[in-house]
Amino acid sequence: MAEAVGFIGIGIMGKGMCNNLIKGGRSLIVWNRDTKKSEELAKAHEGKVTVCKSAAEVVQKCTLIYSCLSTLEASTAVWPEVQEALSAGKMFVDCATLTPERMAFMAGAASAKGAKFLEAPVSGSKGPAEAGQLIFLTAGDAACKEASKTDMEAMGKATFYFGADMGKGSKMKMVVNMIMGVQLNACSEGMALAEAMDLPVTDMIEILKLGAMNSPMIGLKCPTMMNKTYAPAFPLKHAQKDMRFALQMGDDVGIALPLAAASNEEYKKARQMGYADDDFSAVAEASRGANGAKKQRTS
Amino acid sequence: MAEAVGFIGIGIMGKGMCNNLIKGGRSLIVWNRDTKKSEELAKAHEGKVTVCKSAAEVVQKCTLIYSCLSTLEASTAVWPEVQEALSAGKMFVDCATLTPERMAFMAGAASAKGAKFLEAPVSGSKGPAEAGQLIFLTAGDAACKEASKTDMEAMGKATFYFGADMGKGSKMKMVVNMIMGVQLNACSEGMALAEAMDLPVTDMIEILKLGAMNSPMIGLKCPTMMNKTYAPAFPLKHAQKDMRFALQMGDDVGIALPLAAASNEEYKKARQMGYADDDFSAVAEASRGANGAKKQRTS
Amino acid sequence: MAEAVGFIGIGIMGKGMCNNLIKGGRSLIVWNRDTKKSEELAKAHEGKVTVCKSAAEVVQKCTLIYSCLSTLEASTAVWPEVQEALSAGKMFVDCATLTPERMAFMAGAASAKGAKFLEAPVSGSKGPAEAGQLIFLTAGDAACKEASKTDMEAMGKATFYFGADMGKGSKMKMVVNMIMGVQLNACSEGMALAEAMDLPVTDMIEILKLGAMNSPMIGLKCPTMMNKTYAPAFPLKHAQKDMRFALQMGDDVGIALPLAAASNEEYKKARQMGYADDDFSAVAEASRGANGAKKQRTS
Amino acid sequence: MAEAVGFIGIGIMGKGMCNNLIKGGRSLIVWNRDTKKSEELAKAHEGKVTVCKSAAEVVQKCTLIYSCLSTLEASTAVWPEVQEALSAGKMFVDCATLTPERMAFMAGAASAKGAKFLEAPVSGSKGPAEAGQLIFLTAGDAACKEASKTDMEAMGKATFYFGADMGKGSKMKMVVNMIMGVQLNACSEGMALAEAMDLPVTDMIEILKLGAMNSPMIGLKCPTMMNKTYAPAFPLKHAQKDMRFALQMGDDVGIALPLAAASNEEYKKARQMGYADDDFSAVAEASRGANGAKKQRTS
Repeated sequence: MAEAVGFIGIGIMGKGMCNNLIKGGRSLIVWNRDTKKSEELAKAHEGKVTVCKSAAEVVQKCTLIYSCLSTLEASTAVWPEVQEALSAGKMFVDCATLTPERMAFMAGAASAKGAKFLEAPVSGSKGPAEAGQLIFLTAGDAACKEASKTDMEAMGKATFYFGADMGKGSKMKMVVNMIMGVQLNACSEGMALAEAMDLPVTDMIEILKLGAMNSPMIGLKCPTMMNKTYAPAFPLKHAQKDMRFALQMGDDVGIALPLAAASNEEYKKARQMGYADDDFSAVAEASRGANGAKKQRTS
Repeated sequence: MAEAVGFIGIGIMGKGMCNNLIKGGRSLIVWNRDTKKSEELAKAHEGKVTVCKSAAEVVQKCTLIYSCLSTLEASTAVWPEVQEALSAGKMFVDCATLTPERMAFMAGAASAKGAKFLEAPVSGSKGPAEAGQLIFLTAGDAACKEASKTDMEAMGKATFYFGADMGKGSKMKMVVNMIMGVQLNACSEGMALAEAMDLPVTDMIEILKLGAMNSPMIGLKCPTMMNKTYAPAFPLKHAQKDMRFALQMGDDVGIALPLAAASNEEYKKARQMGYADDDFSAVAEASRGANGAKKQRTS
Repeated sequence: MAEAVGFIGIGIMGKGMCNNLIKGGRSLIVWNRDTKKSEELAKAHEGKVTVCKSAAEVVQKCTLIYSCLSTLEASTAVWPEVQEALSAGKMFVDCATLTPERMAFMAGAASAKGAKFLEAPVSGSKGPAEAGQLIFLTAGDAACKEASKTDMEAMGKATFYFGADMGKGSKMKMVVNMIMGVQLNACSEGMALAEAMDLPVTDMIEILKLGAMNSPMIGLKCPTMMNKTYAPAFPLKHAQKDMRFALQMGDDVGIALPLAAASNEEYKKARQMGYADDDFSAVAEASRGANGAKKQRTS
Repeated sequence: MAEAVGFIGIGIMGKGMCNNLIKGGRSLIVWNRDTKKSEELAKAHEGKVTVCKSAAEVVQKCTLIYSCLSTLEASTAVWPEVQEALSAGKMFVDCATLTPERMAFMAGAASAKGAKFLEAPVSGSKGPAEAGQLIFLTAGDAACKEASKTDMEAMGKATFYFGADMGKGSKMKMVVNMIMGVQLNACSEGMALAEAMDLPVTDMIEILKLGAMNSPMIGLKCPTMMNKTYAPAFPLKHAQKDMRFALQMGDDVGIALPLAAASNEEYKKARQMGYADDDFSAVAEASRGANGAKKQRTS
């Protein structure tokens, strides 16, 4: 039987990942801030899950540890005890989407303690996490990458490794999310224009699906934009934050990104209109402008 | 056997459409400015194609006439003799991508002569034209629409009818092309950013193809942008012209289109750099900016 | 005493210009669609103003004719009878802001009748028109330019002549208005940002006035934006139209204008919000976004 | 005779400010990283300037200390020893342009040591610094503000005080610089368009100077853009950095700034073209695009 591995952070993403690790034959040693989620997991997989009292305990008990905390804030709050607990031989794989700089900082700290570190942000949301269809965008320690290979195959459908340069996994994640944000915003502008000219939007979506632009995103998001149903799969404020990071990266390397810049302002406008916690497809309301729905400002 | 129909304009698109009409059982009465193309068609389908000396002759000999001239200029040059030849009972189906205003003008003139008019711009380029996989975006006379139904099934995979309001077919075409232009430009920005950060672009493309943004366009155009091979499938100057028309339509109905506006300037920049006659994916050179290829200005 | 000259169009601008021509020693032969304005002018300057029944009559009675119709529509409506009445030796000076193409068309028609034509759009609004402080941006016939020299000195403070190339006066006008529109929009963004951060806007204006950006526009328009008093000195819909023309000109010559493009969308957004007929400083409401005033849509 | 005050940082700005403080009757206790500049100042004003070996020494010897370090890096490097030396009763006035957050951090640290802190970034460059024509944008400790009142009158022509909220001075500075950057970029776009249409740029500048947009900036910067002489009065990379900060502030408060966003990308493009260390009017080369001058990339 495969050795137990650690898992820190059993949220929307983490839960699906844990299920797939267990399905792949692992037993887990876990911690989550909200203990209820850890216990649910333990209950669902009897005998396979050990619940710890702290993230540090997870690190102490395992050689290979996965972490999937949802925000930079959560990650920053937990890290100090993790760092404290790391020691020679430990391997830490961080699957969160943080900044390249934060990943580099943690890798540096891990290295100072003799531990190995792999950044491994994932592309894909709740559905792919549950289905074991995530894409891992990894960079950092090669041995750590080898050690997590089978686990990533259990959790995902593809793994990319960008070499030892810490931060490249996070950078790729943000490039991809930037493209996604602009492409969705392109659809929302087209839809707002079609609506204003009294063209049938259902037909517009059908035409897009029949042509070169057909993508899962169009099938998934165009209807939510048309129907103004913005239940958050990917919260708008996070999409906008990733866009801002991408712009910052463009700034660092001196690449102008006029579309991303224009799109970032649209996401900000939607945020200002009160859609920060809705799905990022709510950028459609910014595109609709004075024709759009009005919402009380929530953030 | 089905009645012969007229076909004016045997260019890149028209040729494929004619082949599929004949395959569907029609015989054709055709005219093309360059006679050679008409004769090639006649030779390829012995006994099925009658070559005329003028567009007017086509109109005189047929009840149902298709026209597929490639530009507004070509269409405007041929129209006067067509208009002259139109008479009560004639049905004219225009498959070109012109402006809504031009379509309305021709429909008005046809109507004044007692003829029926259908605008039917197509979505799809050379490949879909040959494969009988075009999408027809039609508006105008309903009887004309019925009369061309079987033919459109032979030439395409879907037909949309937006009612009697002349111009709606052209408007939908431009909305769709606007979305396409912005989405491609989103990819080119992402690619330029990835390149500047030394991220592997082949991996970026692979990641896009594995995720929610996967589309035929990404599979087709990202590699041409990466390899800087811009053989024109859809000339950049035409893509930019359609973007400009879409912006004009947004102006007419009072919808702000900040992404399309930013993107239009990028396509203009690529035009200024000398890529007017290359494929519209050459917008990648504008995204690359000072890192990009330089070309002698051609337009 | 100086020979009488013709004047067509006694609107906001024309009235001030006529007063200054008379003050300069001219007697006038005038026509205006609304006869009341012609008669008021005649009454104010007894013995100096002859009121005509048509624009054609003005042309017939004078050698040198000024025209200052406020819109392309007004100009297009009156032109046919003017064209009909033009003959060898007549000199026609058009002070309206039209398109370069329209100016070229009228110059061509005048030339065909043996007449001379000067385009002479003015920079400056009601106040400068009354004060004889306009700026004339002229192009076209040189003799015509010489003949109107003294009159332009009476009506304005400067005259620029861009040679025989018809359209260059109108082009310069639009370049200048484009810069103005973007600069004002820059102020409105700064103000919206200052407001949102609870910085005192009166101080912001004061600081701008003390520094390198101090301009009459800042002194005039920043307070109206702050106080949301948008009585139209220059209607927003006209400012947006000029921006659109400038973008079109950029398109023609292949110059990307990303700021003007972004700004045009903001003016469109303000139009969509209902500020079409207000002063163009109402673009501030677009900048304020969801924080801004709401208005019923008027156009 | 007035009490001696401290001055840290005798760069382009600091030198002029020191001269004016001495002219106003102060004697100074100074420190500068490059000792030569301190000694030059001492030599120029015999008996009025005491040169210290460290910034800490300046703080120890004075009650009221001014600091004017040119960058966030320089400020961050010197601060620790300043902080160490601060004690109850000391008053520290920081005239650098840093971030609101950095100002708040230093104010907090000063407060913890019992010292008083005033942020006082200046609007104005080398010329105004020499001429005693700076504008102080202050926030923070009111007593500190009172104590520096006479000195600011010696160094500047106006002082604004935005209350105790630390950061508001820096925020106002960035709002003003954002407007400046966009307004200049508006001019550069207009100029690029005028050039491309063969309109005389000298006339364009003249017309701007005769109209509502006339400002010192237009008189100063339009000629440098026309002549492509970009000796740095305000380095482009600093202008772009301020624009980025302003965008970040807009992000924080949820205000969309589409023009600033578009302009930021233009400044980045100019940076990428190699103009980072030239004057910010070199953004004109980005506006000129493929028509522009090419430079080796310097940053």
